[in-house]
Amino acid sequence: MSLLDRERIQLWSLQKIIGGELDRFDDVYTRLMTGETPLIEDVCAHVRQGKSKRFRPTLLLLSAKHDGPVPDEAIIAAACVEMIHTATLLHDDFIDEAATRRGLRSVNDAWSPATALVMGDYFYSKALDALSRHGLRDALDRLAATTLKMSQAEMMQLETKNNLLITRDAYMEIIDRKTASLIESACAIGAGFHPGLGDAADAFGEFGRKIGFVFQITDDIFDYLGDERRLGKPTGQDWEEGRITLPFIAALNAAPEDAREEFLGLVEPHDTSERADHWPAVKAFVLEYGGVDEARDTARRFGDEAKSVLEPLASGVQKDFLAVAVEYVLRRLN
Amino acid sequence: MSLLDRERIQLWSLQKIIGGELDRFDDVYTRLMTGETPLIEDVCAHVRQGKSKRFRPTLLLLSAKHDGPVPDEAIIAAACVEMIHTATLLHDDFIDEAATRRGLRSVNDAWSPATALVMGDYFYSKALDALSRHGLRDALDRLAATTLKMSQAEMMQLETKNNLLITRDAYMEIIDRKTASLIESACAIGAGFHPGLGDAADAFGEFGRKIGFVFQITDDIFDYLGDERRLGKPTGQDWEEGRITLPFIAALNAAPEDAREEFLGLVEPHDTSERADHWPAVKAFVLEYGGVDEARDTARRFGDEAKSVLEPLASGVQKDFLAVAVEYVLRRLN
Repeated sequence: MSLLDRERIQLWSLQKIIGGELDRFDDVYTRLMTGETPLIEDVCAHVRQGKSKRFRPTLLLLSAKHDGPVPDEAIIAAACVEMIHTATLLHDDFIDEAATRRGLRSVNDAWSPATALVMGDYFYSKALDALSRHGLRDALDRLAATTLKMSQAEMMQLETKNNLLITRDAYMEIIDRKTASLIESACAIGAGFHPGLGDAADAFGEFGRKIGFVFQITDDIFDYLGDERRLGKPTGQDWEEGRITLPFIAALNAAPEDAREEFLGLVEPHDTSERADHWPAVKAFVLEYGGVDEARDTARRFGDEAKSVLEPLASGVQKDFLAVAVEYVLRRLN
Repeated sequence: MSLLDRERIQLWSLQKIIGGELDRFDDVYTRLMTGETPLIEDVCAHVRQGKSKRFRPTLLLLSAKHDGPVPDEAIIAAACVEMIHTATLLHDDFIDEAATRRGLRSVNDAWSPATALVMGDYFYSKALDALSRHGLRDALDRLAATTLKMSQAEMMQLETKNNLLITRDAYMEIIDRKTASLIESACAIGAGFHPGLGDAADAFGEFGRKIGFVFQITDDIFDYLGDERRLGKPTGQDWEEGRITLPFIAALNAAPEDAREEFLGLVEPHDTSERADHWPAVKAFVLEYGGVDEARDTARRFGDEAKSVLEPLASGVQKDFLAVAVEYVLRRLN
């Protein structure tokens, strides 16, 4: 069984628990992702075709899951979280000039950069408007704060692009705002719909935030580990696009002074078109000095912290499947 | 006295009434438009330098103005409305590949298209987050709906780009969502802070919406009327960028069949690089068949409607200066 299949099966075992809720999610998401004019609908239909793992909605709905039915409001909130995620993908693909997304052509490539920009704005604002119309105050407040954090992180990424000496703290700050914050919001919003967990919403958010760190660090590791683990994506994309991630930072910290200086002299980008040529040297250096191993340890530590945060909060079956969620994200590494 | 000076003086006479409030607005706006990282702050500082007429905050504060002090919340809401307006300018300049804005280099030109995209997202989300943090529910609800409308209008503009046969209804729908909706929200939000007008907030919004139509139609007329009325901008930009506006639509409707067909055969863009060459012919046709005159009549009608909407709502000094606001927007045409 390939790693890709194994990952899908693990996620599927989690999503089975909330199968009914995910069906309702699909309905609401499809309805929201429907355009009011022919061109908006064309882009919506294209984006709807792309298969998402629905990871954020899954965590939101698992956090809300209890004996009774999960309310419609939680389903709407889950759809809005996914829409915001989709909006960030459209804007990210524009920034990275990506040609594909979720197995389809990217919106910037299939239509135009302007279309990707405006449709990203459209998905963002449609999600926030839907939350507002349904009176989902808590979700609206959390997601307004989260979208601000995500835009700050995008600016920090532009700011540190090609900076080989970016600190570990700066990297952590970026992934906290870029990735962890939305998963944090998803879990906090979900817990808010659980009749026994509303008071623990912030703590559930912290659980989600830790999972977000695991998720992003594992993604960053995949960029070093080769095709069979990359779900079809090529390796070295982060490097080529000027994103310096934890495996690189960790290797640079671990390497002896002279090896580090020699390496930096070699790969310092005088011309960004040379970056792809340097990738084999970068990958070899990062593996040699244990960058991937240290990043993996860091991810595992965040996974353990997620489970610790969860310990006093959830109970019974919910605790079990949220622990499985942590394992799912961690096992992507094995 | 030049038209530009006259316009500034008329607006100044209005802004004198709310001088204290506008000073407070400037403080709050400057504080919100301050970045958390060096690059974000660089862009914020650049954007802060650009002189805005503060037209939307002025209308919001005039709608809120009464005998007592205008509350801090109204000032914050005004700053958030202006920030959202600023966000749309960054994204618009990106779409139009504009090189300048408010007398300065545009963000897309001075930094990069990606910076303009992300900083637009940042200003949008920072405004919505500030409203959320201050518990300004009404403003947040209205502005979430408005940002959705604005993104729909941007898509409609992409959809009808270079379409010489766009209908008057489609044009009105676009400017309603693109321009009128934010001015509508500004007036409705302002009235909501007036102790005697809260119930009339939607009607005040309708007043603002009508002003918004006047504002956009006059802007579209300026694109035909030559330099001295264009506040320094060149004419024909809408045409060159593929935006067909009311003067063009009205002239095409008024022209006899044969003249229309001949004209369309001449200017139909087989190659967009030819558009600038066609501008003299387009301008001559639009003036000859009364397109500017009819657009001016339409703007005046919206101005009259704005004053009618206002009639039963405001009283005393507030009614007077809101009527002056209508005159200010209309007089830009004289």
